[in-house]
Amino acid sequence: MKKWSTVIIGILIFNTVLAEDGYRLWLRYNTIDNVSLLQQYRQQVTSINCPSDDARLVSANQELQTGLSGLLGKKIPLQTAVINGTVMLALPTHLPFIRKQIGDTAMARLGDEGFIIRTIKYEGKNITLITANKQAGLLYGAFHFLRLLQTQQSIRQLSISSTPKIKLRLLNHWDNLNRTVERGYAGNSIWDWQRLPGYIDQRYLDYARANASIGINGTVLTNVNANAVILTADWLQKVAALANAFRPYNLKVYLTARFSAPVEIGNLKTADPLDPAVRKWWKDKTDEIYKYIPDFGGFLVKANSEGQPGPQNYNRTHADGANMLAEAVAPHDGIVMWRAFVYSSETPEDRFKQAYNEFKPLDGQFKKNVLVQVKNGPIDFQPREPFHPLFGAMPQTPLMMEYQLTQEYLGFATHLVYLAPLFKEVLNADTHSKNENSPVAQIVDGTTDEHTLTGMAGVSNIGSDINWTGHPFGQANWYTLGRLAWDNTLTPAQIANEWIRQTFTNKQAFVDTVQQLMLASREIQVNYMTPLGLHHIMGYGHHYGPAPWYNKAPRADWNPVYFHKADSIGIGFNRTATGSNALAQYQPAVRQQFENMGTCPEAFLLWFHHVPWDYKMHSGKTLWETLCDKYYSGVDSVRWMQRSWDHLKNYIDTERFNQIKQLLAIQEQEAVWWRNACLLYFQTFSNKPIPEKYEKPDHTLAYYEELEFPYAPH
Amino acid sequence: MKKWSTVIIGILIFNTVLAEDGYRLWLRYNTIDNVSLLQQYRQQVTSINCPSDDARLVSANQELQTGLSGLLGKKIPLQTAVINGTVMLALPTHLPFIRKQIGDTAMARLGDEGFIIRTIKYEGKNITLITANKQAGLLYGAFHFLRLLQTQQSIRQLSISSTPKIKLRLLNHWDNLNRTVERGYAGNSIWDWQRLPGYIDQRYLDYARANASIGINGTVLTNVNANAVILTADWLQKVAALANAFRPYNLKVYLTARFSAPVEIGNLKTADPLDPAVRKWWKDKTDEIYKYIPDFGGFLVKANSEGQPGPQNYNRTHADGANMLAEAVAPHDGIVMWRAFVYSSETPEDRFKQAYNEFKPLDGQFKKNVLVQVKNGPIDFQPREPFHPLFGAMPQTPLMMEYQLTQEYLGFATHLVYLAPLFKEVLNADTHSKNENSPVAQIVDGTTDEHTLTGMAGVSNIGSDINWTGHPFGQANWYTLGRLAWDNTLTPAQIANEWIRQTFTNKQAFVDTVQQLMLASREIQVNYMTPLGLHHIMGYGHHYGPAPWYNKAPRADWNPVYFHKADSIGIGFNRTATGSNALAQYQPAVRQQFENMGTCPEAFLLWFHHVPWDYKMHSGKTLWETLCDKYYSGVDSVRWMQRSWDHLKNYIDTERFNQIKQLLAIQEQEAVWWRNACLLYFQTFSNKPIPEKYEKPDHTLAYYEELEFPYAPH
Repeated sequence: MKKWSTVIIGILIFNTVLAEDGYRLWLRYNTIDNVSLLQQYRQQVTSINCPSDDARLVSANQELQTGLSGLLGKKIPLQTAVINGTVMLALPTHLPFIRKQIGDTAMARLGDEGFIIRTIKYEGKNITLITANKQAGLLYGAFHFLRLLQTQQSIRQLSISSTPKIKLRLLNHWDNLNRTVERGYAGNSIWDWQRLPGYIDQRYLDYARANASIGINGTVLTNVNANAVILTADWLQKVAALANAFRPYNLKVYLTARFSAPVEIGNLKTADPLDPAVRKWWKDKTDEIYKYIPDFGGFLVKANSEGQPGPQNYNRTHADGANMLAEAVAPHDGIVMWRAFVYSSETPEDRFKQAYNEFKPLDGQFKKNVLVQVKNGPIDFQPREPFHPLFGAMPQTPLMMEYQLTQEYLGFATHLVYLAPLFKEVLNADTHSKNENSPVAQIVDGTTDEHTLTGMAGVSNIGSDINWTGHPFGQANWYTLGRLAWDNTLTPAQIANEWIRQTFTNKQAFVDTVQQLMLASREIQVNYMTPLGLHHIMGYGHHYGPAPWYNKAPRADWNPVYFHKADSIGIGFNRTATGSNALAQYQPAVRQQFENMGTCPEAFLLWFHHVPWDYKMHSGKTLWETLCDKYYSGVDSVRWMQRSWDHLKNYIDTERFNQIKQLLAIQEQEAVWWRNACLLYFQTFSNKPIPEKYEKPDHTLAYYEELEFPYAPH
Repeated sequence: MKKWSTVIIGILIFNTVLAEDGYRLWLRYNTIDNVSLLQQYRQQVTSINCPSDDARLVSANQELQTGLSGLLGKKIPLQTAVINGTVMLALPTHLPFIRKQIGDTAMARLGDEGFIIRTIKYEGKNITLITANKQAGLLYGAFHFLRLLQTQQSIRQLSISSTPKIKLRLLNHWDNLNRTVERGYAGNSIWDWQRLPGYIDQRYLDYARANASIGINGTVLTNVNANAVILTADWLQKVAALANAFRPYNLKVYLTARFSAPVEIGNLKTADPLDPAVRKWWKDKTDEIYKYIPDFGGFLVKANSEGQPGPQNYNRTHADGANMLAEAVAPHDGIVMWRAFVYSSETPEDRFKQAYNEFKPLDGQFKKNVLVQVKNGPIDFQPREPFHPLFGAMPQTPLMMEYQLTQEYLGFATHLVYLAPLFKEVLNADTHSKNENSPVAQIVDGTTDEHTLTGMAGVSNIGSDINWTGHPFGQANWYTLGRLAWDNTLTPAQIANEWIRQTFTNKQAFVDTVQQLMLASREIQVNYMTPLGLHHIMGYGHHYGPAPWYNKAPRADWNPVYFHKADSIGIGFNRTATGSNALAQYQPAVRQQFENMGTCPEAFLLWFHHVPWDYKMHSGKTLWETLCDKYYSGVDSVRWMQRSWDHLKNYIDTERFNQIKQLLAIQEQEAVWWRNACLLYFQTFSNKPIPEKYEKPDHTLAYYEELEFPYAPH
């Protein structure tokens, strides 16, 4: 009968399952299709030996049983007997021999979350040992071992030691309590608040699994434009239910704290951070939170930014506000992440400079358990930004990196854009803050200024769509955040390669082509959206599509015209000493690189200079010609992506192939829209023709200016 | 190798797939687990013979290949050769022998959508013939044949003839253009407007498949609280893309028409339906729509109701408004569905009576292609309502039934409530309009007044949740609408039985228990929410939970107190001649049944009478005692449902078992909440004790009155 049922189910799957809906993400565990490799693996992996004295070990063990049985196409049992091919998970506290085997220094190097995977002899048997100092390490080690098989690497003589470079590896959800998601493009929030705490959706567990598999160890559940209601008892019970669901996957829960909560839900007259009643209210509220969630992570705060309340409402500093909360969570080992994304509507100052101006003076004034969370760039998650001048400027303060996974300015969930190159470009940028080699990566991971409290966050691109991120390739950006936060030395190519293999297939031709697409995709988008250092020229409010002409926003620095400053002479924002002098916020070595129009990398040119239309670029072409070349090459490259993708039809499931094919077609249309709208508009200043060789825009500028999108997601 | 891959995939499924996420609805096609029956089926079904000269036939043929191959656990090929066990789909126009074989009368009886399934000899072979007059019939016949196997019925000597009782079998989506869903509890809208028309989500195709499988042939995409933007060119292209995706499944698209559209998007000064410019605008707009969607179904309109614009704004009648649109769509064979759900905030008249008062006088004034769409009851989708007095009162007008699948007043997507008993209760109610036997069913299906244009609609409970309806049992209500619209003689038991078998398992013990649960569930809910004819006593705005005390709404008839009228003497709404006299709207025979407190069925007592607390019920107990008994028995019955469900653990997948177990636990808590809140409140009028034998409410009335749900879905 067993044979039967297997065969029967085997056929059933052809009909109903091989349609890949993307829900499984990179944890697909399909049986290895390379038969000889499958045979090897089956010899090398025969059973699992794992204690279950901790929820995280139960998770690790479940995942190994599911994953290995799927990958090897046969049941891999949990058993106590150690045999050849046993995968053994254990801490030195479980098995004293481990400490001798590995050695104290090697163990010490792992910290609380690192792991070692070694092929060893144990009681005469060839086994794979996965060990760590803490249970979390074993969980991460289990997922790493599975990844080796998923990506079809040799597991013959393993000797792996891996320790996370960053301590806090977090997702930031901009999810509202009514289940909408600010800047969400993949459906609505996966937090079904209405049915919490009573109903635990399977999705919560798979979300936690996915995060654990890439080392993400914390999640901020709520929008930084915060709602105090989340801090009330009824809602804390809902949060606690999620925390309980996540805990077995070593995923901690954090919340955003609305600064005015003491007034809104505490019936106090003020939220002044130096007011004793306010301080007591936060202390009591925090104690209450920890009653519900003993391992609550802490608070993320957006204060005095874009209308959010904050300490400045009471003439206090960001440090005053952050430290008040830090004191409240400190007894529980909680932390505070205070966002540096601030700019005031009052000051006419270049928005680029405001965060630095406000925060640099506060360096040294923050409590030990406070991190200042800084966006990768000085404006707001544009396709390309120079690194934020605060990196390297606050040596006494742990600076947490904030990336944006949701593609607010990068084509929503419609454009294929792999973000690892953007993330790495920033990490690799040298701040010159301490010496010749102080890249942002080492500021963030604490090396440069010897911080042990370190963090990296990604604004989530996750929603209720079945495939989690709307665009199947959006999954790669979620994946990247986790892998890069764990190991900031990984290259975009390495991360793409392993993601593709797990998510689609190990077939080399597919992997090579898709990896090429992914690595090129971000520069391609920069070219058809904002080449040569243009930035913030998208539609107002919803940020959908191009609107470089827009100038009706209630504040100057929400208008594209504020940022590109196109006129009859040229285009670009002069941030040199003759302009806003934002460059003065960088170290001299960085400033020098940017402040000279001739030496400034062309990719950043219009970030820092107002450049004449006739300016000769390195190529010998004028700025205007180069601008045209960039926009047109961006569109051409999208067409190249389409052609490349079309060749891959037979490598993967029809469902995802067609899905991506359709999305690439929309991306091509929108790339043309960006190119035409921007060039036609800038042409009204340059008064120069679009080179003859190029296809003519198929609409007028007026047509593009009149487009409206009242229901675009925002 | 084949054997291998089968076995391998077979095991993979254990790990990743048998977790049933509900996405497949009742179209699961798992291989028949009854081995002897499987052997029989494999002999009786060996191949498919089906022409592909029409998109609907391609769908039928694809579905048969997928379904039969899944159910039989082996590939069932499409082949032209006819052999023993061929399933042959054909129209008489394909194969002339069919007409002789079946006979003209039998064929004529099928109309445009009916089908015949017969086991016959053809060229000496035993085959199953599925035939019809039109392609749609073959599609529905194919799904019916699959259902026979899914529910494990004999297919040995088939002789089935089936014709839909209702012509328009529609879903009404209350989906907004920003992707929220009014009264939606299963996530957000499945219409991803932002990525339409370029991106066709697989979900659209599976939505159409599911509808075709139960005979639903139309869908209104947009909210009755309408937005004129849907009628603009950009959006019509999105609608057309959906129509193209649905067409192969014989699913027509309809839209809601905002009456003021000529002003809002047409730049006219008025929307007066008698104004020539307005009439021309609608005609031109309609012609434009049909350019995009040649088989567009027509318009659904909510006018002069709850603030929606309508003809009365111009002192015209509903008939004037409906006829204007009817004229516009008539040349394209389109129809207009004009909702009778109207009540004016000005008139103090009993809301029960207003639709009748406004519409009855218009009988005979509507164009031929207009249906008046009437909710099942006079108020608004309460757990129990008497049938709407308009049924039987407008013999010259086709009345379309409007049910609500989304559980706005029935526990959202959290409570297990099977709606077929509610739907059938109304269909079976005798209006006495023409003779002794004029049940609502025969008013709606056109028998009584000889209408050929007939319709039944269900307000959708579908959203972006992976399982479509939030609560797995919500799927049964979607299923019921289709099956009942096709055949209004089906019983709730029959529908539940076939749904359970397809959705979960054919194991008899499971089927019997769950069928029992489902059939009891609606009456159980009436008991813990609104027993004895109570109605509209839920929370204000979001309609979540009990709030019989609420009296702060901007209009009287939005307040629970307006409906229950509890006072020191008794409780209930006197709608007899001594009261609002709403009963006068029914035929004498109906009125008599209700107007006498002694003969009025207790289930409707408080709908029509203000009954003293001490009133002796048939049982001999007082009204108050009976009220207590009902509320307490409702809660006890939910606990019985929980116990029954717990026994089913081993019959189905863990995922859905746990999901439903959790939801039943919440349902129990909310049932207790309803019981306690209502009884404690009504007790302040009755001044009588809750009988000693019952568990005491665990909170005070004040506690319940203070509960607030700012973010409950609405």
